[in-house]
Amino acid sequence: MAHSDIDELIRIFSKLPGLGPRSARRVVLLLMRNREQVMKPLHITLGKALENIKTCNVCGNLDIHDPCVICSDVKRDDSVLCVVEDLADLWAIERCNLYKGKYHVLGGTLSALDDRGPSQLNIESLVTRVGAGQVKEIILATNATIEGQTTAHYITNRLNGFNVSISRLAQGIPMGGELDYLDDGTLGAALRARLPF
Amino acid sequence: MAHSDIDELIRIFSKLPGLGPRSARRVVLLLMRNREQVMKPLHITLGKALENIKTCNVCGNLDIHDPCVICSDVKRDDSVLCVVEDLADLWAIERCNLYKGKYHVLGGTLSALDDRGPSQLNIESLVTRVGAGQVKEIILATNATIEGQTTAHYITNRLNGFNVSISRLAQGIPMGGELDYLDDGTLGAALRARLPF
Repeated sequence: MAHSDIDELIRIFSKLPGLGPRSARRVVLLLMRNREQVMKPLHITLGKALENIKTCNVCGNLDIHDPCVICSDVKRDDSVLCVVEDLADLWAIERCNLYKGKYHVLGGTLSALDDRGPSQLNIESLVTRVGAGQVKEIILATNATIEGQTTAHYITNRLNGFNVSISRLAQGIPMGGELDYLDDGTLGAALRARLPF
Repeated sequence: MAHSDIDELIRIFSKLPGLGPRSARRVVLLLMRNREQVMKPLHITLGKALENIKTCNVCGNLDIHDPCVICSDVKRDDSVLCVVEDLADLWAIERCNLYKGKYHVLGGTLSALDDRGPSQLNIESLVTRVGAGQVKEIILATNATIEGQTTAHYITNRLNGFNVSISRLAQGIPMGGELDYLDDGTLGAALRARLPF
């Protein structure tokens, strides 16, 4: 099969997360077999997304509006700001349907290895937002990795002079987690942070 | 996230083989983070494929040419025809880089359960091709499933009056296969079809 379009499609799909050359072939076959029902809608929706999706200038979220629907939602609490590394984390928190404040998407973590400093993250805009005075609480929801925690510490330092309370997500045993399978770090953290029964 | 384009993209991706809602979200996130490098090329290639790919009127293959590159390749042997169920099977045989004849893609199998009769498959066009007189050998490379074998039998009957030799793929132990893990059917077939050492 020396037809570049199909090969090129397979190549692009095989680079997507969770797909390899084999599954990319299966995807492309399915697309070509369901041209009207799947391939065309995918093409159209991709085109629309490319055209419409922009970065929210307030929080760094991606949306078809700027400011995004979360930032412009008057029912959400302006005084609480949840700081996340990435869009995926924002989505994860939104899915648990519990948080009614606003967000700030950093766009990554500080990383000495990957040569990523504070200027490459949306930290300056966070300081500006906090400086505006409306924010009373910051929830640092960076990942529980070394980079995530380093970033959280850096942000805490940067927000030192402001009158905001800063909290972070609780660490402990995940729901349904079995002690036997937990790593020592998690178990230790859960033990230190034990709560009255 | 109440933005239809992103949700719709995730919905379409989650329907593709090998992807679920979770991996579809990861794919869409990667696309949005790599708009220029991945999302745009995917959109463009999909558009080109939609526009250019057509079904070969001779063999049923999908290609940007009609007749397809295989059918119009003068270096390939016109006298041997490999009959496959599906495009995926044609690709699989092409990948082993051994077969230098031409193909005929049936577009599926006969199936009483799915109510698929001979008229829904490219069988009539196969009979016409064979009737033209150039074909001397037919290799029935349908799958080793009940439907595949039923279809092979049906085709053998339909080609009864023609002067062609009909063969099918050998059944036996797959390369690297361990006897202990093989199903009884395969082992039995391999035993019956044993070859002198």
